[in-house]
Amino acid sequence: MPNRVQVLFGIQYPIIQAGMVWCSGWKLASAVSNAGGLGLIGAGSMSAEILQEHIRRCKQATDKPFGVNLPLLYAGIEQQIEVLQQEGVKIVFTSAGNPKLYTPRLKDMGMTVVHVVSSIKFALKAQESGVDAIVAEGFEAGGHNGREETTTLCLVPAVVQTVSIPVIAAGGIASGRAMVAAMVLGAEGVQVGSRFAVCEESSAHQAYKQAVWQAKEGDTVLTLKTLTPVRLIRNEFCERVRLAEAAGATVEELKQLLGKGRARKGIFEGDLQEGELEIGQVSMLLNHPEKASAIVESIWQEFCDVKKQLANTDI
Amino acid sequence: MPNRVQVLFGIQYPIIQAGMVWCSGWKLASAVSNAGGLGLIGAGSMSAEILQEHIRRCKQATDKPFGVNLPLLYAGIEQQIEVLQQEGVKIVFTSAGNPKLYTPRLKDMGMTVVHVVSSIKFALKAQESGVDAIVAEGFEAGGHNGREETTTLCLVPAVVQTVSIPVIAAGGIASGRAMVAAMVLGAEGVQVGSRFAVCEESSAHQAYKQAVWQAKEGDTVLTLKTLTPVRLIRNEFCERVRLAEAAGATVEELKQLLGKGRARKGIFEGDLQEGELEIGQVSMLLNHPEKASAIVESIWQEFCDVKKQLANTDI
Repeated sequence: MPNRVQVLFGIQYPIIQAGMVWCSGWKLASAVSNAGGLGLIGAGSMSAEILQEHIRRCKQATDKPFGVNLPLLYAGIEQQIEVLQQEGVKIVFTSAGNPKLYTPRLKDMGMTVVHVVSSIKFALKAQESGVDAIVAEGFEAGGHNGREETTTLCLVPAVVQTVSIPVIAAGGIASGRAMVAAMVLGAEGVQVGSRFAVCEESSAHQAYKQAVWQAKEGDTVLTLKTLTPVRLIRNEFCERVRLAEAAGATVEELKQLLGKGRARKGIFEGDLQEGELEIGQVSMLLNHPEKASAIVESIWQEFCDVKKQLANTDI
Repeated sequence: MPNRVQVLFGIQYPIIQAGMVWCSGWKLASAVSNAGGLGLIGAGSMSAEILQEHIRRCKQATDKPFGVNLPLLYAGIEQQIEVLQQEGVKIVFTSAGNPKLYTPRLKDMGMTVVHVVSSIKFALKAQESGVDAIVAEGFEAGGHNGREETTTLCLVPAVVQTVSIPVIAAGGIASGRAMVAAMVLGAEGVQVGSRFAVCEESSAHQAYKQAVWQAKEGDTVLTLKTLTPVRLIRNEFCERVRLAEAAGATVEELKQLLGKGRARKGIFEGDLQEGELEIGQVSMLLNHPEKASAIVESIWQEFCDVKKQLANTDI
């Protein structure tokens, strides 16, 4: 019997590849979908034209379901939604914005809509807006993150007991063991970011991938909390933010310090000191390149093995 | 077949009650031990004389194994160790200090020694010092906490793959489901703090317990990061720390602001605005009084039930 997440997307394994800026183009999304998971194209780093091209290529590369991650605060959102409609995209994960503004429209276009949240409060708002499922993303996750700093271990059971729609766990999940842990807490699927961000099909710069493989415990930090909290590998840019915040910088000054295009600079161009190197805490457990299909298979195999072992041990 | 943590302590269930300041006297520790877990007396809020009294009463109240949590940076540590030796205490959990300075002595006295860490680095140091097991405590835990901010979901598997001695998971664990999650990540036992901090046998003030039951997501914060990071319920004191830090306060100024005895004031005297209200993020899931024995039984029962369910579901 498949669970609600498998049924909702029509996928073999409830393993979703996060739609990450500068990492998740058609190559990554189609590879994950072909392997039985759900691949997502990350629209947050794409113009409408580029997004259209990635969707078209993805359709050519796989006949399995795939989706698009759409950050709702993106300036070009209207053009992007037009592209999704034109291309007949069936699955949309929305994030970073108010789901009430867009969910009814996306649902009217016949799409399955999932919203990413970092709190019970926003999980409820998302459910009320009519989404089909929720991604509950904990403090350990890479990239943009919640102000409550609630970890996956605390957030997932709290969201599961609050909403009735399926919950997908995210943050700190890069293995079959972590997937079992998430499912035990009540999730019906997992969204994996970091491990896919550095796989072969990720369009991230090789220098960024190397930096992730080398990252140890404590090497990522949730920074820019006075603007929008974001988890990055510590580098010169992070240090300047720290010094500015310690010196009492205003929001305006921090915005100026951040400027534009730092995620592109870090992830896509490989500028390790001036770029934003978005990645999760779980990077401490990642240290080598892999194919996307191998990641899906390894997570699923470990998930099944660990479940079997659990049943056969006294404790 | 019992696992290594059950064997090490001679306990029925690998559920350890954290030795928490102002909460964990003989009443709580003996209640947990009598219920089949491992109760710990929290020496961090006790003089040597008070500690001796609690150990003696605990011995009268239970014939099951119990232990003492000993913060190694405590000023009265030498007198406390003397008391442990005099009273023949068999199990010591050390925390907040260098295990190399004390482990050999405690081992020579015939004690089983466990050290609490928040990083791989300190887990290795603890293992090298000769401890019998490690508590790996994540960012979501209450009270004093690590600088790396690594969550339980990321920390536990990382520590498990680094050391060979048994690992006990802590931080965010207050249910049988969370216990399954921790064990799946490789832990062989769990240390539960928050849920026991507000149980009937906890010596904490009723007003503190009420504050914990009322705490929602985002209501705890890891603060005083420039001194020693500590997770507290947000209150006037936390806000003053935040303002001081934003204004660039020096370490000396923060020490002065902190002063002495704030944990006592908050937890034991119930001063909700001026006291330090140490508690974990998982407080968001706690909302009513319970007996310590009921907590042990409920965690264990849920742990067994969830394991059984897992074995019988396709996903």
